[in-house]
Amino acid sequence: MPSKLPDVDPFRPPVEGGHSLSDVVQEELEAFAAHQHEVLAEAGSELVPFVDAALSCVRGGKRLRAAYCYWGWRAAGGDPGERRVLAAAASLEWLHSSALVHDDVMDGSDVRRGRPAVHREFEARHRAGGWAGDPVAFGVSAAILLGDVMLSWADEMFRACGLDCDAVIAAEPCLDACKTEVIAGQFLDVVTQSNRGASVETAMRVIRYKSAKYTVERPLHLGATLAGAGPDLLRLLSAYAIPVGDAFQLRDDVLGVFGDPEVTGKPAGDDLREGKRTVLVARALDRATPQDRAELVAGLGAADLAGPRLLRLRDIIAGTGALAAVETQIADLETAAATALATIAMDPTTRSALSGLAALSTRRHR
Amino acid sequence: MPSKLPDVDPFRPPVEGGHSLSDVVQEELEAFAAHQHEVLAEAGSELVPFVDAALSCVRGGKRLRAAYCYWGWRAAGGDPGERRVLAAAASLEWLHSSALVHDDVMDGSDVRRGRPAVHREFEARHRAGGWAGDPVAFGVSAAILLGDVMLSWADEMFRACGLDCDAVIAAEPCLDACKTEVIAGQFLDVVTQSNRGASVETAMRVIRYKSAKYTVERPLHLGATLAGAGPDLLRLLSAYAIPVGDAFQLRDDVLGVFGDPEVTGKPAGDDLREGKRTVLVARALDRATPQDRAELVAGLGAADLAGPRLLRLRDIIAGTGALAAVETQIADLETAAATALATIAMDPTTRSALSGLAALSTRRHR
Repeated sequence: MPSKLPDVDPFRPPVEGGHSLSDVVQEELEAFAAHQHEVLAEAGSELVPFVDAALSCVRGGKRLRAAYCYWGWRAAGGDPGERRVLAAAASLEWLHSSALVHDDVMDGSDVRRGRPAVHREFEARHRAGGWAGDPVAFGVSAAILLGDVMLSWADEMFRACGLDCDAVIAAEPCLDACKTEVIAGQFLDVVTQSNRGASVETAMRVIRYKSAKYTVERPLHLGATLAGAGPDLLRLLSAYAIPVGDAFQLRDDVLGVFGDPEVTGKPAGDDLREGKRTVLVARALDRATPQDRAELVAGLGAADLAGPRLLRLRDIIAGTGALAAVETQIADLETAAATALATIAMDPTTRSALSGLAALSTRRHR
Repeated sequence: MPSKLPDVDPFRPPVEGGHSLSDVVQEELEAFAAHQHEVLAEAGSELVPFVDAALSCVRGGKRLRAAYCYWGWRAAGGDPGERRVLAAAASLEWLHSSALVHDDVMDGSDVRRGRPAVHREFEARHRAGGWAGDPVAFGVSAAILLGDVMLSWADEMFRACGLDCDAVIAAEPCLDACKTEVIAGQFLDVVTQSNRGASVETAMRVIRYKSAKYTVERPLHLGATLAGAGPDLLRLLSAYAIPVGDAFQLRDDVLGVFGDPEVTGKPAGDDLREGKRTVLVARALDRATPQDRAELVAGLGAADLAGPRLLRLRDIIAGTGALAAVETQIADLETAAATALATIAMDPTTRSALSGLAALSTRRHR
């Protein structure tokens, strides 16, 4: 059946004569930020770089969540050319940037999308200005506040999308769930990282909340609910969304160890250096010989992990069969998602787009 | 005229037979948290202490913002016995706790309301459990995420207050402004603290955003808008709210230097030890002799500031006349607020309550 579907670019829905979804999302974000510039200019010129930094954060994302939101809208029969659903979808980008900025503070990450992380950027400004106090603390404070304001803007922009207010009210609980679940998933992740015995089961639970629901299921529900979807359709969409979302994060875990830094924009082996107990790592620890296991445990979280030692840890992980097992798991999840998608009634364009999004989410290189 | 007003306890409006505002707010917060317990139990039992910690944060606050919200509702003619406006008002407590938890991380404060700050509490749990990794980083991560979830809950609880949805929609921009302005004020504060030459003007601007609008004006607007107030009434309320709010924070600045730790729940001279460039400090620096000025600058931000050296800095500040000047400023602001209040048409009970709240906000000892 998939072979009969039209060839649809999920990022190029028919909105305003061929503008891409990413372009429209960016325009909406810039318009919203311009409004915030005005609001905050009253507080003082010191706020200008603050709003600018927020706008920088939302530039250049993959727009996956916005795309799932738009195609959720379409799956529920929403008007293909409705620009306002993309304004609603764009609000998810503030939420996502908020999560990334706070995540980088918590992980002590220096780099995001090939650029300095926000806390490092503000730290550098502090140093360059020769200001008083601790530059590191200043950077962390600015990043905490920037994440806060973007989290707040997600709600504000969503509500101001301009769609019918009954639809907006009906969809708000999806946004609430999206926010609460991703924060809960992050907390679960932080607790799990502190627990030396993190199991595959726990790591899968982290994935479910931190990624699957947040990146795929809730954005899809959000768009579908805006178009009037009821609980039955949402349940069907979940059967597609959860496996895609799980596979999305499993792919992320693979890229975090084996990804090409030129493509991912993150240093090689970042997840290992940060000591992340991902599903991939948990599987490797389960299967490794005692000697390899000890070497892997010793290397996880080593701040200077690089070069031959990093390559050696990669070899251990691949050698246990964990990499192959995760790739099999990803393939099985793709099949489950495709099976679920086939049971949902929708137009061929939407079906093709959701099928394409699943492939993009799980087979990507960055 | 004030002498003819009835004697009204602003924290004991006629809701459900004599329950105090603080009791009803607490009940609403607990009911909301119980719901979140259910939502997050699905993610895992690890989330139970997370929700518990959020609930601990909102216990024992002064409920000033909730009270301003309720009396804003009353000022606009809202039904005195309407419990749902207190559910809406209670949502401000999540916002406030979020700001405090993130503030304590940014300031590196160890204590809040006489108890360990959230980041310190989670740090202690990490140590007690003998978990892996850095306890300090764990505490900071947990506190960042707890602040995030409470910020998100403010919106969710506000929308779920149960009042007419047109009223809720009309009032949401007040909540948005409240959130954006307090975060902007915090950023302005962080920037100002990094700027050795912080002037009285800049410090007043920080106060305006971080406190006056956030603690008094926006909560008052929120309640009034829920009851259908238009722009004219909001403007009149601002003329009362802004001076009260400015005076509220000036009182806070005085307590931060001269307050009794037994009453404030914070260590003596906390603001000086943190090196805060408050209006009080900016005025003292403006007026001090070169020698006193040098001594004050050297002591500001000294981590071990206590005992005779702290007393000496207090003497310098009082000796410059800055303390007296700030007390005069507070008194002038109280007069301005009372004059503005007198011009607004409202029932005597509400007038008395708002008059009482102004006094409580500006003459408090904690």
